[in-house]
Amino acid sequence: MLNIFNLFRKLIFTDNIPAQSIKMVKYLKQDEAINIDQELFDVYKFSVDQLMELAGLSCATAIHKCFPPNDYKKVLVICGPGNNGGDGLVCARHMQLFGYSSEVYYPVQTNKPLYCNLVHQCINSNVTVFNSLPESIIGYDILVDALFGFSFKPPVRPTFLNIMDILKTTNKPICSIDIPSGWSIEGVPESDGIKPELLISLTAPKECARSFKGKYHYLGGRFVPKALENKYQLELPPYPNAECCVQL
Amino acid sequence: MLNIFNLFRKLIFTDNIPAQSIKMVKYLKQDEAINIDQELFDVYKFSVDQLMELAGLSCATAIHKCFPPNDYKKVLVICGPGNNGGDGLVCARHMQLFGYSSEVYYPVQTNKPLYCNLVHQCINSNVTVFNSLPESIIGYDILVDALFGFSFKPPVRPTFLNIMDILKTTNKPICSIDIPSGWSIEGVPESDGIKPELLISLTAPKECARSFKGKYHYLGGRFVPKALENKYQLELPPYPNAECCVQL
Repeated sequence: MLNIFNLFRKLIFTDNIPAQSIKMVKYLKQDEAINIDQELFDVYKFSVDQLMELAGLSCATAIHKCFPPNDYKKVLVICGPGNNGGDGLVCARHMQLFGYSSEVYYPVQTNKPLYCNLVHQCINSNVTVFNSLPESIIGYDILVDALFGFSFKPPVRPTFLNIMDILKTTNKPICSIDIPSGWSIEGVPESDGIKPELLISLTAPKECARSFKGKYHYLGGRFVPKALENKYQLELPPYPNAECCVQL
Repeated sequence: MLNIFNLFRKLIFTDNIPAQSIKMVKYLKQDEAINIDQELFDVYKFSVDQLMELAGLSCATAIHKCFPPNDYKKVLVICGPGNNGGDGLVCARHMQLFGYSSEVYYPVQTNKPLYCNLVHQCINSNVTVFNSLPESIIGYDILVDALFGFSFKPPVRPTFLNIMDILKTTNKPICSIDIPSGWSIEGVPESDGIKPELLISLTAPKECARSFKGKYHYLGGRFVPKALENKYQLELPPYPNAECCVQL
């Protein structure tokens, strides 16, 4: 149904009117994203474990729809030091269960029990986790960018410059979780910024997603209570059936 | 594909050879179920929050496949005092997001923070939670049985006798999470026991599921690491694509 709608949209709107101008959903500013996240924990009493599990699962599911494991077997998930990296760790584990061969590059690991457990779960699910940059990314079919999320503020720290250079120049398909890493949340991306083919916005798209020019834009994180959606006027699109992600 | 296989199976096997005799998966004894659960937490370092979220989501998804909200709008989820009840609370919240009108009967509530938060999440997602038995269940289209799980040992406590009587005698479709409540995990169910139309086995089916005669049997809880599956020789069926449940 949504695909028919997208086709219809493409047929009637010329290139002069970008698809993003049809406001199907609200695009969040950084403050709004931070506030909604905080409310999910403080007011709605969700645990990080719960929401990270659902977020990471929805990312793995969207990737499966766009880059199925029969065609894209080997995946490198690049995890940053915060919650975006945590989503990546969950995503890598579910992708392994979906039939991918997942590996994780996680250069700055924290001692928080949640993160130690997520790494432990990966390793015990046959997902290799390493903290030094792989010599080459030639062997991977897709790269999952879980480096920086909606609380990112530039500049990129020195530790991440090498991997950012790789992401900026690779011709492998990149799947970005929530934000293409390095992009300003509210601004227009730099011309040499990373160019993901798939963006999975979580909860609701952020302002910068208006500039996304890749093939697939999905929304994941189907856990927003109706009252919270209404309060922030998110105008979320309907998810099909019991699915955990929806194409925008 | 699986449906074609099931059809084929039904065509070639007579009533004298029950479908369950074709061992697609292992059926767990109570001790095995308890040990696997313990290993998921102790060895694989999953949190209860994580696995309960995935289990409850897979139950809601299986129910959506069998009893979609367009035809079965109003649902009562009956939650017991343990983890099975917790799965039910998660299931009720996801069903509300899927378009059902969910209510929860939760007679024996605990003070554990996880459970208090699950109830809080339900209430703040417009799922009514009550602890006294509804006067009538006439208004509900389906009943979800999340009373007792794999650690249940008879007899049923007095607090639950009334709701058990209702479940035993109703003609509404019942969806049982993991175990049809009141059934012995390893034995043969009593002739006046509850008769669910849908059973969602979690992790792996339990011994008693061999006696299940309802319309739909699903497996959910797609989180078992390969090493654990191999250790207990679970012979789990392949889940389709990125789906969180599979019909057995």
